[in-house]
Amino acid sequence: MAIRKLLIANRGEIAVRIIRAARELGIRTVQVHSAADADSLAVRLADEAVLIGPPAASKSYLNVVAILDAARATGADAVHPGYGFLAENADFADAVEAAGMVWVGPKGDAIRVMGDKVAARIAAEGAGVPVVPGSDGRVDEPEHARTIALAIGFPVMIKAVAGGGGRGIRIAHDMEEFERLMPQASAEARAAFGDGGLYLEKVIERARHIEVQILGDGTRAVHCFERECSLQRRRQKVWEEAPSAVLPQALREKLCASAVALAKTVGYRGAGTLEYLYDDASGHFYFIEMNTRIQVEHPVTEMVTGIDLVREMIRIAGGEPLRYRQEDIALRGHAIEVRINAEDPARNFQPAPGTITGLAVPGGMGVRFDTMLYQGYTVPPFYDSLLGKLIVWDEDRPAAIARMARALRELAVDGLPTTKPLHQLLARDPDVAAAAFHTRWLEPWLDQNAHRLGTEETTE
Amino acid sequence: MAIRKLLIANRGEIAVRIIRAARELGIRTVQVHSAADADSLAVRLADEAVLIGPPAASKSYLNVVAILDAARATGADAVHPGYGFLAENADFADAVEAAGMVWVGPKGDAIRVMGDKVAARIAAEGAGVPVVPGSDGRVDEPEHARTIALAIGFPVMIKAVAGGGGRGIRIAHDMEEFERLMPQASAEARAAFGDGGLYLEKVIERARHIEVQILGDGTRAVHCFERECSLQRRRQKVWEEAPSAVLPQALREKLCASAVALAKTVGYRGAGTLEYLYDDASGHFYFIEMNTRIQVEHPVTEMVTGIDLVREMIRIAGGEPLRYRQEDIALRGHAIEVRINAEDPARNFQPAPGTITGLAVPGGMGVRFDTMLYQGYTVPPFYDSLLGKLIVWDEDRPAAIARMARALRELAVDGLPTTKPLHQLLARDPDVAAAAFHTRWLEPWLDQNAHRLGTEETTE
Repeated sequence: MAIRKLLIANRGEIAVRIIRAARELGIRTVQVHSAADADSLAVRLADEAVLIGPPAASKSYLNVVAILDAARATGADAVHPGYGFLAENADFADAVEAAGMVWVGPKGDAIRVMGDKVAARIAAEGAGVPVVPGSDGRVDEPEHARTIALAIGFPVMIKAVAGGGGRGIRIAHDMEEFERLMPQASAEARAAFGDGGLYLEKVIERARHIEVQILGDGTRAVHCFERECSLQRRRQKVWEEAPSAVLPQALREKLCASAVALAKTVGYRGAGTLEYLYDDASGHFYFIEMNTRIQVEHPVTEMVTGIDLVREMIRIAGGEPLRYRQEDIALRGHAIEVRINAEDPARNFQPAPGTITGLAVPGGMGVRFDTMLYQGYTVPPFYDSLLGKLIVWDEDRPAAIARMARALRELAVDGLPTTKPLHQLLARDPDVAAAAFHTRWLEPWLDQNAHRLGTEETTE
Repeated sequence: MAIRKLLIANRGEIAVRIIRAARELGIRTVQVHSAADADSLAVRLADEAVLIGPPAASKSYLNVVAILDAARATGADAVHPGYGFLAENADFADAVEAAGMVWVGPKGDAIRVMGDKVAARIAAEGAGVPVVPGSDGRVDEPEHARTIALAIGFPVMIKAVAGGGGRGIRIAHDMEEFERLMPQASAEARAAFGDGGLYLEKVIERARHIEVQILGDGTRAVHCFERECSLQRRRQKVWEEAPSAVLPQALREKLCASAVALAKTVGYRGAGTLEYLYDDASGHFYFIEMNTRIQVEHPVTEMVTGIDLVREMIRIAGGEPLRYRQEDIALRGHAIEVRINAEDPARNFQPAPGTITGLAVPGGMGVRFDTMLYQGYTVPPFYDSLLGKLIVWDEDRPAAIARMARALRELAVDGLPTTKPLHQLLARDPDVAAAAFHTRWLEPWLDQNAHRLGTEETTE
């Protein structure tokens, strides 16, 4: 069904991003919003806006009934969920389709399979995609657990089946520690989640986070190469690149082919990302999970492939077949994205909402700033702290880093502290220049550089 | 000689553009400025700024002595002239080099040859590049003039040898008119320029303006494909594209090869542009002139080739060999630039300087706004009216036009009238969509659409 009016069930920079893509396709836009977002840029840019509830996300951006009511009231024929909020809620996807509207994303069942860690792992194994060695489900019998731990090899990660977000994780470096930690972890899991069930996974030390962007139309699927997002703080990505600086070409092809194979097993429709751990010492990669939505860091892929991913996912949802063959998609140059957050890096990244009293947007060749900011805008305290994504493209990685430093110097967000000083330091760090990092590189670096994080650099 | 500190002998958006390129190369910048430009963005962004005179360009941006003094006082080792002002002044180029500094541009003698219309024409003929059929110099004898006119074929353009900027041009459609106009034109030329000498050129009707970007290092030269700039008002380009929508591939190769051949005959160093008339009915093209500097519309070439032309010209001036082989340079997608001027399209494009009370810069994928504006900036009345260049890139021309319409809608320059409404109309014009235009298409279109030029479109 050709989409004529698209409801955006999200806020912030991704809502602005979706409005732009829809407008270029000649599709009208309806922006739903909480009372806290009445003055948002997305509300200003959209063709129509509908207030759906108070600031608390549970009463607005997670309020399925209010969102579907807004869609019916405005005659919207499609819903784009963005990322976060309801983007990976299979029941919401089903409800949108049951209401006769187009869901801009994969079928509910594809979200269900990929949203369940055990099911996704089984699907990956079925597609011949390597997964992190582990117990393939819960290990309730102590004797069985010991056998599995020996098979995996120490160090072993002990995780709560019912856990999430890194909670309840223990790492055992030998059998003695393993036997001591298992009962503790089980008791803690029972107390926290009501289920003491545990599962085991190999610890990939000094791993890199590499992910593959895919596009599918339910019949065909292609990859748009990989991104590397190894610079993380508390499992949040802070600096993202495309392509990875360290992946050999033969492995790139193997990794990307594995992602397409896995996407095809679920008849994937839309834009999706398969996340992997990559051990560049051994050259092994391991599938960890799939995100069945557009991701925050999608622009770096857009910059190196020239493909507008958000526009493409809307076209596919509207019934168009995938417009690219794999051989049409080529890498050109290097792109980097950094997240500009309303957080004070000198105060342990404490969130710092406030009013934007001045704004200078960096410009020029190869520079893109995806943001919902405007001068005079008040950042509400209710949502995540992302203010904008500064993205640069250049011929190669060293040039892209130099361009990032130049663009950061031009960026001025007055009125509140931001993470700009962090990125200015990263842009001139020798390990970053050498791409000599992994997912646990940034946190100790932050501890060591805490005293330097408070000041923007304004000269060379 | 490696450049360490670059003086920018220009203002406005191109000064900002040059500062960005220099900074990415790790080169410090010195911005000279008139008293009217003390608050300009270029002055704010540069590492150093030097006041060189009062607002009148003759006393500041054309003041060779003051500029060279500023270079010496700040220890600058190179000068970038931008476009306009002293950019094609061969004596200034020589003076910069005589002072022991690097001139970011071709040798003075290359500027001299290409700046002389007759010499440039001879050079083109020597390189086997077609030129507009004409008298190859002055035609003082009436009998000789009639013979030449017959050989060229009517209509014939009569131009003053000493003229310029379109002044003193007459068009004769037959011999009777020719014999009547020649004495008039000669008398008028003598009165206006002190020289009654005339020369003749064939009128290329319904011609397109197509130009080829080249880069040379004095030894090698490459082209970066063509731009089409047929939408002009009073010989000023208002909408520019890369590539041309109508040039067949075989002709593109021939045209671009001719430009490289001509650049090589003068040992061209830096970025330059060869301008041609193209008659798409006959498939003939004719060289008209070369601009020995960076051009306003260079970003469309940057967007489709990925080459940073300003950075490259600085590298070459610093002694680096050209970093591209011809086979490294590929076209990708389509780019369009429109000029946002401080002019009132509803009042015959009357210049309208003033203060920027609000500014919304369009963003997102494939959008670039090269500007010297910031909120609160007062546009001085002394210089040209260019406020910024809105450039978009997309996969193909129809998508680029849709993206341009989207970006124009987001652009808000509050406080003075701009040419935005003109571009909004062009972006939805069926002849523009079909690329069915030539260099004389826009002016009658403006007359017909005068009543629609006063209003910005804010809805679809």
